[in-house]
Amino acid sequence: MSRKAPWITYRPELKVLDCTIRDGGLVNDSHFSDDVVKGVYEACVDAGIDYMEIGYKNSPERFPADKFGPWRHCHEEDMRRVVGDHSAEDTGLKLCAMADAGGKSEWEKQIGPAKDSVLDVIRVACYANEISEALEMLEHCKEMGYETFLNVMAISVTADAEIDTVLRAAADSPASTVVVVDSFGNLYREQVDGLVRRYQKALEGTGKEVGMHAHNNLQLAFANTIEAIILGCNRVDATLMGLGRGAGNCPMEILLGFLRNPKFQLRPVLKVIQEQIMPLRQQHDWGPSIPYMLTGQRNMHPRTAIAFRNGEAPDDYLAFYDQLVADV
Amino acid sequence: MSRKAPWITYRPELKVLDCTIRDGGLVNDSHFSDDVVKGVYEACVDAGIDYMEIGYKNSPERFPADKFGPWRHCHEEDMRRVVGDHSAEDTGLKLCAMADAGGKSEWEKQIGPAKDSVLDVIRVACYANEISEALEMLEHCKEMGYETFLNVMAISVTADAEIDTVLRAAADSPASTVVVVDSFGNLYREQVDGLVRRYQKALEGTGKEVGMHAHNNLQLAFANTIEAIILGCNRVDATLMGLGRGAGNCPMEILLGFLRNPKFQLRPVLKVIQEQIMPLRQQHDWGPSIPYMLTGQRNMHPRTAIAFRNGEAPDDYLAFYDQLVADV
Repeated sequence: MSRKAPWITYRPELKVLDCTIRDGGLVNDSHFSDDVVKGVYEACVDAGIDYMEIGYKNSPERFPADKFGPWRHCHEEDMRRVVGDHSAEDTGLKLCAMADAGGKSEWEKQIGPAKDSVLDVIRVACYANEISEALEMLEHCKEMGYETFLNVMAISVTADAEIDTVLRAAADSPASTVVVVDSFGNLYREQVDGLVRRYQKALEGTGKEVGMHAHNNLQLAFANTIEAIILGCNRVDATLMGLGRGAGNCPMEILLGFLRNPKFQLRPVLKVIQEQIMPLRQQHDWGPSIPYMLTGQRNMHPRTAIAFRNGEAPDDYLAFYDQLVADV
Repeated sequence: MSRKAPWITYRPELKVLDCTIRDGGLVNDSHFSDDVVKGVYEACVDAGIDYMEIGYKNSPERFPADKFGPWRHCHEEDMRRVVGDHSAEDTGLKLCAMADAGGKSEWEKQIGPAKDSVLDVIRVACYANEISEALEMLEHCKEMGYETFLNVMAISVTADAEIDTVLRAAADSPASTVVVVDSFGNLYREQVDGLVRRYQKALEGTGKEVGMHAHNNLQLAFANTIEAIILGCNRVDATLMGLGRGAGNCPMEILLGFLRNPKFQLRPVLKVIQEQIMPLRQQHDWGPSIPYMLTGQRNMHPRTAIAFRNGEAPDDYLAFYDQLVADV
C-alpha cells in the first residue's frame, strides 16, 4: 500500500529525471550550445530535479564529431566546461548519460571509472532483442562505479513473452531502475497499467524501481506519466517544454506542477524554457501534431512523420494520412 | 459490468459530440464563415459523429449581432443556409445548440418548437448556483420537443455538497445526459474518476448518461476523456484540432483514433481540419501553452492567461508566472 500515490501529500521516493539534452539531442544531432546545457543544468539544480541526462555516450566513430555535437559523446572535458567539478552531493542532482546497445556505443572504451567522471549514472538503452549486450554494459558500468538504469525501448511493439524474458534478466542485473519506454507514443492508459504492473511484479523483492519514459504523439505523455506514478512508479522522465524528436516528451513544467513535494520549484524551469528552449523553436519542429499522432495511433516509429515534416508540404496532413493508408 | 469499456471491441452506446463551432466560437466571437460551418457539418456527417453543436442560443440583446457572429444566436435562417433541411434521421447526426443560464439567453423567446427547427438537441449550460433556472430551461426545451443535456460548468471549483444537490435535481430533470465540464482544465485522473463515479451514482436507475467535456490546459483533455470512457461515460465532447478558448478542448482527431467503432472515420475529420481549421490558426491563438497550464494548475478561469496572451509580451511566460504569484 505504501507504493500507492497519496493524493495531496507526496512520496519522497519519487524522483524526476530531466532528459532534455539527451533525448532533445535527437532533434538537433546534439548540437546544443554550452549556454543551453549550462542553463538546463542550473535549472535542474535550482528546481530540485533529481537526475539530469546530459547526453549520449555514443560511438565517436559511428556518430562522427563533424556531424554530431558534443552531447552525443559526453567527453569528460566537454561536460566539465559546463558543469565544472559537478558533485551530486553538493547539488542534489545526479548527472547521467545514456549508452545504447546495438553497436551504437563503444562502451568498454568510452565509459571509464566513475571516480574520474562528473557522471553519476549510466542509463543503458536497448531494444528487447539486444538485452544480452545491455546486461554486459550494465555489469561494466557497475564495475566502473556507476548507478545504472535499463531503458527497454519501443515496448509497445514488444511481445509480452519477450518483455517477461527481458524483465527476468533485468531483475538479476545491477540496474537500479528499469524504465517503461513508450518510444512510439502509442500507449493508452490501460496499456500503461498493464506494463507498469508487469514490471513491478517481475522486479518485486529486488529493491529496483520502475521508471516511465513517455512520448507525446497522442497528447498522453503527461497523462501516462502520472498514471505510472499513481501505480507506484518512482522514476519519471521529462523534458523542458517537451523538447524531443517528433511529438516530444512529457513536459517537465506540467509534471512539476502536479508533484506535491515542496522541494520542486517551477520558476527555474520556466526561466530556462524562456531563455534557452523557446529560441530553439525557431529552428526546430517538435511537439504534438497530426502527423506524429498518426504514427502513434498506428504504433509506428515516428521517422516517416519526421521525414514528411521535413519534406515539401509539411502541413499537408491529409496527404500523409493517405500515404500511410496506401503503405499498408 | 456492461458499463466497463471493452478493450479492442467497442460500446455502441458511446456517442461523440463535436462542439467546434459552439465552444470554438469563444475564440472568435462566433464569427465563423458559412464555409467553415458547412465544412464542419459535412465532416461530422461523413465521419459518423453523433452530435454537432452548431452554436449558442444566446441573447441577441446581450450578445449583439454587430459584435458577435451568427453562431452565437443560431437563428433558424442562418443554420438552414448551411445545413439545409437537416434531418437527423437521414444523416445520423443530431444538431445541437447551447443555451446558457444566468441571463445569457432569452430562452423562452428564442427557443421555439423543435418541429420548426433543424435543431434536435438543446444543451443547457449553467454554473451550480444557476441550477434552478437551468431546470426551468430544461423543462421548456422538453415541452418544445428537444432532447436536452445539462452541462454544469466549472466543476473543479464546485464543492462536493453542491455537486450532489445539482445532481439530485438533474436526476429528476428531463436531461438525457449530465456532463462533467472541466472548464478550467484543472482535473487530474483521480479527480475525473471521483466525479464520473459521483455522477453515475446520482443518476443510477434514471437511464441518463454521463458526459465528459474536457479542456487541455494540462494536456489532459484527451486523457481525461478516455478515462471517463473507461469508467462507462457514454457521451464525450471534442473539437477539431482542439479548437477552443485558451488551451482548447479534447482534439476530435485523437479521440476518433482511439474509438474502435468502425462507423467513425478519421479522413473526413483530417480533411476539414486541413481545409477549414488550420487556416484559422493564422488569426487565432489556441492550444496548450505555458500560460494556460499555469491557470489550469491553479484551478483558475483562463481569462487572465488569455488577456496576457493578447497583451504586449505574449511569450514572456516568466512574467506571467511572477504576476500570478504576486496576485495571490
